[in-house]
Amino acid sequence: MSKLRVHNFTITLDGYATGPGQRMDAPFGDGVDGLHDWMFATRNAREQHEMEGGEEGMDNERVALYTENIGATIMGRNMFGPQRGAWEDHSWSGWWGPNPPYHNDVFVMTHHVRPALVMEGGTTFHFVDDTPEAVLERAVAAAGGRDVLLAGGAKTIQQYLRAGLVDDLHLVVAPLLAGAGERLFDGVGGLPGYEVAEMVSSAAVTHVHLRRR
Amino acid sequence: MSKLRVHNFTITLDGYATGPGQRMDAPFGDGVDGLHDWMFATRNAREQHEMEGGEEGMDNERVALYTENIGATIMGRNMFGPQRGAWEDHSWSGWWGPNPPYHNDVFVMTHHVRPALVMEGGTTFHFVDDTPEAVLERAVAAAGGRDVLLAGGAKTIQQYLRAGLVDDLHLVVAPLLAGAGERLFDGVGGLPGYEVAEMVSSAAVTHVHLRRR
Repeated sequence: MSKLRVHNFTITLDGYATGPGQRMDAPFGDGVDGLHDWMFATRNAREQHEMEGGEEGMDNERVALYTENIGATIMGRNMFGPQRGAWEDHSWSGWWGPNPPYHNDVFVMTHHVRPALVMEGGTTFHFVDDTPEAVLERAVAAAGGRDVLLAGGAKTIQQYLRAGLVDDLHLVVAPLLAGAGERLFDGVGGLPGYEVAEMVSSAAVTHVHLRRR
Repeated sequence: MSKLRVHNFTITLDGYATGPGQRMDAPFGDGVDGLHDWMFATRNAREQHEMEGGEEGMDNERVALYTENIGATIMGRNMFGPQRGAWEDHSWSGWWGPNPPYHNDVFVMTHHVRPALVMEGGTTFHFVDDTPEAVLERAVAAAGGRDVLLAGGAKTIQQYLRAGLVDDLHLVVAPLLAGAGERLFDGVGGLPGYEVAEMVSSAAVTHVHLRRR
């Protein structure tokens, strides 16, 4: 059985995944500078982005889970790009350059579908306007027995949490306060079907692992 | 200079200090069962409440800060008791029995003043209807050179954070999800005047220390 897994999804201490004002030159919005610094300090993340060096240890091990046994990916349209509403054209191909770090079929949930986008390195973006359940079905089929990564953002993860479809939710709490933006734990209730399996701090952040009871 | 310090203020992973429905038989409301289990597992907290045993270690050391060099206390009326609005009578003397764990002058912020309440063990509850600044002035005078504990609850801490009067904010994040209630970090913005000085996990919880830059 393929699992649906969230990894390295980083929120501020006050619970925000993005600040207000997401745009081209501020993909995560305002007031969250440094949110992912912990990640880009690790060897695994640097390797994925073709950079040298980086730290070993707890944070690095968690970053590795982002790709381990993952065969397909789901993300929200707001994570794919800063545009909202209908596409003006199809020139935007994501934040990640010609060789995105997914290397599998990525299902982008949007009401504004467009043709599939084949990138280098095995990543193909599919634009799908469907229910969380139906998108997950397609992703599972594409994953070929491996798990499905639910990449983000907050609203997309919330949809899957409300549907009870997330198997593993690995969050990272960064020592920042945003004060405004999009909170991961809004509109999902107390998640009675989930338990906190682990909460552990590195020098930089706190890792939290929620899983279904 | 006396400092204004918050210690061991415990919130859920999704940021709630209380659940909804605070009342006599549920002082912290619904959906937050076990919020303070970490505390009552420690030797220091058990000693304060005249119980035997308890764990040593990180959580126990943090609990000790609750009383270390503290000369006076401020709390909100909702922390003092479950009643709201005008007092029906003055029979309520707090949640803590005849010998409350404060052992100093406790200033209870309320629009409904009543006569001071002298308890065993050096605790006197003073009921004050005044600004955060004025209440702090009185507490500092009563503290005799020691610091002032800002005990809670969320709304009272928010008032002091907005006024920039909190020197040290020691929070504890418990591995629980409440889904509703009162969130500590609502209505305080991103607290630009503060920095996260420490974030560290024990086996049970994550301790966070915010201080003024």
